[in-house]
Amino acid sequence: MHAALAAAHGAAADGEVPVGAVITCEGRIVASAGNAPRGQCDPTAHAEIRAIRQAAQALGRDRLEDCDLWVTLEPCAMCAGAIAHARIARLYYGASDPKGGAVEHGPRLFSQPTCHHRPEIYGGIGEREAAGLLRDFFRDRRA
Amino acid sequence: MHAALAAAHGAAADGEVPVGAVITCEGRIVASAGNAPRGQCDPTAHAEIRAIRQAAQALGRDRLEDCDLWVTLEPCAMCAGAIAHARIARLYYGASDPKGGAVEHGPRLFSQPTCHHRPEIYGGIGEREAAGLLRDFFRDRRA
Repeated sequence: MHAALAAAHGAAADGEVPVGAVITCEGRIVASAGNAPRGQCDPTAHAEIRAIRQAAQALGRDRLEDCDLWVTLEPCAMCAGAIAHARIARLYYGASDPKGGAVEHGPRLFSQPTCHHRPEIYGGIGEREAAGLLRDFFRDRRA
Repeated sequence: MHAALAAAHGAAADGEVPVGAVITCEGRIVASAGNAPRGQCDPTAHAEIRAIRQAAQALGRDRLEDCDLWVTLEPCAMCAGAIAHARIARLYYGASDPKGGAVEHGPRLFSQPTCHHRPEIYGGIGEREAAGLLRDFFRDRRA
């Protein structure tokens, strides 16, 4: 999660909402990305989507059954859907997101009967730093 | 929808599940893509995601408020989430998807209170051809 938090700091430095994600495969980091929809001019460029795409490229396959995803914020519906498509084994996330999260909030995507893959899920990992980073970012933006 | 169906035929020819998507802006096609997770080695490479990324690149912005998306199959949760993030104005889709769809099935994403953008939605456009294409593809794959 330290690497995911570092990617989130990088996103903040680029003026993006500070969320970072890392994918590990057998304990080794195979992808790391910050949130970058503005910089990349791509509304799908959330940290999780970018990390999944990077990992799939690096490993040369579109299923990541032996990979874990670490992200500083509860994934939204788009990213939770991508995690299911990628068959990620374990999802570790930091801060919860009552407004946009889709794991423990809103559609609770992995609990839907139509969800075809549910990772093991661990929330609240590094939550304090992840949430603080987001709070500071939005406070500075309002200032 | 003819162009989206053509993109779906292209996906089938490449051995991918035949779904195609097109984005129009003021009546002009700005992006067109077929489903390609295997070919692109990218679990997020659904037709809708590819078309949204293409359109955002072409228009040089990450919000597509003046764009419509045409897709041959009811979008899944990942793609419906991306459509909301991209602020697509109107969504036209062909066949419904009781197994994986997230518009009129499963999480019904655009009806969730946490959904921050809901396009106008028109289902069943070119449904017969879109559904036939999928049926033929899965029949041939089982054969």
